Amino acid sequence: MKRSIGAKTLAFPTPTWVVGTYDINGDPNAMTVAWAGLCCSVPPCISVSLRKATYSYSGIIENKAFTVSIPSEDHVKETDYFGLVSGRDENKFKATGLTPVRSELVAAPFVGEFPLVLECKLLHTLEIGLHILFVGEIVDIKAEESALDENGDPDIEKVRPIIYGTGSRSYYGIGRDLGKAFSIGKER
Amino acid sequence: MKRSIGAKTLAFPTPTWVVGTYDINGDPNAMTVAWAGLCCSVPPCISVSLRKATYSYSGIIENKAFTVSIPSEDHVKETDYFGLVSGRDENKFKATGLTPVRSELVAAPFVGEFPLVLECKLLHTLEIGLHILFVGEIVDIKAEESALDENGDPDIEKVRPIIYGTGSRSYYGIGRDLGKAFSIGKER
Repeated sequence: MKRSIGAKTLAFPTPTWVVGTYDINGDPNAMTVAWAGLCCSVPPCISVSLRKATYSYSGIIENKAFTVSIPSEDHVKETDYFGLVSGRDENKFKATGLTPVRSELVAAPFVGEFPLVLECKLLHTLEIGLHILFVGEIVDIKAEESALDENGDPDIEKVRPIIYGTGSRSYYGIGRDLGKAFSIGKER
Repeated sequence: MKRSIGAKTLAFPTPTWVVGTYDINGDPNAMTVAWAGLCCSVPPCISVSLRKATYSYSGIIENKAFTVSIPSEDHVKETDYFGLVSGRDENKFKATGLTPVRSELVAAPFVGEFPLVLECKLLHTLEIGLHILFVGEIVDIKAEESALDENGDPDIEKVRPIIYGTGSRSYYGIGRDLGKAFSIGKER
């Protein structure tokens, strides 16, 4: 039996990603987001939604670029910190000891210690309401060697990404392998 | 050490959601998506990206509405099937035995057996490239009683959503609780 719980911003799963930007002074900033997702195959694109009030918002507008750094479980505390304070008040890289690495392709920094990084140039800006949706074209992905499988592709079980649980506001790891996509549906 | 792996549509984690639509004849259709995410808090919105070639695309355009049904691990095979075939060729609800339930709020059906359902009216359409991004305003969420916590909120551990692993194209469950958001970052 289903019950109405009202109009909420709630869905499972949502990602836990860190958006990297340079501010107007060229200082690196980073911000955790969960309102985000892949959104196009050709060109490869990802969307992240930010409030205008965030410091990162102005960084994206200024540079027409951002990165998405995907943390592993090992950095869940630093990742949470990136969502707790504003880059207006604190240099979050200095505070965490994590390394801002300048992208050679777009005007944005990424988190050196995170296993998987998407470098994006701003393609579209869509003002929805409290949040503005930015579509970034993924111009390259950088991956740690240790996060790659035998074919040289990023392996989700080696990256060990973080899931954000809306509602309870908890982080989760990924769990067991449930089967191959475009395959197990044939077995019904 | 990081290695460039090129411009790909790849990120971890991505969701596994089923978009429900009515076709031009009023028949229910459903399609699995992973290029999707929450995208605004006020109004509460979710985005799903579809190719124009899909049957569901025309269903959204026709009705200016869609639902997002969130499957649990129990229905991973049916969920994969929803992404394997086109509603042009087959009635996927009949084929799976799952129940299309008419939303009372928007012109779209949801999957009766899935624990969590978002009813959405189309707010924005953004043509990116191969994929078109649809922003839907979440007008209500319906949840199974069995998926709610003691406060009446959806519990991710009871919903047991499915994560899609891009690259390897595998499904995963959620794993262990890594801590509270907006909290564990203070402990660094």
